[in-house]
Amino acid sequence: MLLCDIGNTSYHFLSAETDYKKDVKEFDPSTIKERIFYICVNPTLKIVLDSLENWIDLAKFIDMDNYYDTMGVDRIFACEALSDGIIIDAGSAITVDIVDAGLFQGGFIYPGTKAMKKSYTDISTALDYKFNYTLDIKKLPKNSADAISYGYLKLLHSEVISHNKDIYLTGGDAQKLHSLFPNAKIEKRLIFNGMKRVIKKIELI
Amino acid sequence: MLLCDIGNTSYHFLSAETDYKKDVKEFDPSTIKERIFYICVNPTLKIVLDSLENWIDLAKFIDMDNYYDTMGVDRIFACEALSDGIIIDAGSAITVDIVDAGLFQGGFIYPGTKAMKKSYTDISTALDYKFNYTLDIKKLPKNSADAISYGYLKLLHSEVISHNKDIYLTGGDAQKLHSLFPNAKIEKRLIFNGMKRVIKKIELI
Repeated sequence: MLLCDIGNTSYHFLSAETDYKKDVKEFDPSTIKERIFYICVNPTLKIVLDSLENWIDLAKFIDMDNYYDTMGVDRIFACEALSDGIIIDAGSAITVDIVDAGLFQGGFIYPGTKAMKKSYTDISTALDYKFNYTLDIKKLPKNSADAISYGYLKLLHSEVISHNKDIYLTGGDAQKLHSLFPNAKIEKRLIFNGMKRVIKKIELI
Repeated sequence: MLLCDIGNTSYHFLSAETDYKKDVKEFDPSTIKERIFYICVNPTLKIVLDSLENWIDLAKFIDMDNYYDTMGVDRIFACEALSDGIIIDAGSAITVDIVDAGLFQGGFIYPGTKAMKKSYTDISTALDYKFNYTLDIKKLPKNSADAISYGYLKLLHSEVISHNKDIYLTGGDAQKLHSLFPNAKIEKRLIFNGMKRVIKKIELI
């Protein structure tokens, strides 16, 4: 079974247990001849893929009553991977979504690490510090680097912990946030797992 | 008694009960002949003011053991205004500082409303929404505008509330945040109050 999670910059494939990426600008999807299940956040690419019979858009099989129209399809499929838990998908944005008894309960969006760092630096060069991911969040900061790290990380931590659920970390910055959530499970293939569960549920294969 | 709180763009004066502003680029401080107590975050201006005998820098009278070197002088004087409480100074950054038994306990820095809005929009035009300041923070969002508003505002709210102290709102965006903290006191002149308390404490007049 071939799966593909398509973002704005790359096709991310999973074939059996191997995953690999192809550049959106260079890869020609018509070179794939076998049946492939995909999700895609890129609207221009979706038009191309719609014309290819062997490319099957899994988004069409989602019951959208549980979600909302402008919710990213990647968030939806991460939620589909779980029956219960809180998902932190740390990419350019950090999306935090809660699933309870197999149903999406809602979620929020927080700036990703790069965006938030830029936000502080744009306010003032006096706030140009790297985030301290091993910050002691039990202590109110008394230096500038910790003052911005606490503002960014402690606030996220408190909110996530308050929901009292198993935490699943995914996305490119998952590892960075692991020290903040040491009990979280890092699930690099959460979206692929969601795709597999949807395929199974609707008995596509 | 004449007081002046000098930022990067303006001189903010308080004379008796009247306050007014002058542009940093246009105003000539040597035109003031009476004794004036000031604080100043602008290092270039400080050199000029140091040469004027009637301009008295109140920062010199602060016991810095309670604070830290790179802490903005405006934050320090806001803290000096209180014996107990949590201060939210909502400007280009939102600084949150805690004072207990007359001593600064620590604080953190969060992006201001404009900086945070820009942060979301820079990540994706799909996140280009105005913040919903009357968001129901008890409910997990199921739409994009609330998903970013919750990410920004609910996280700040939970942290501030967790300290269980009287809340003081100051800075240009104090009014915007009032719906989020309906029990907070808006104190537009918190920094001036801090300056007055320092003057009294050191018996300068």
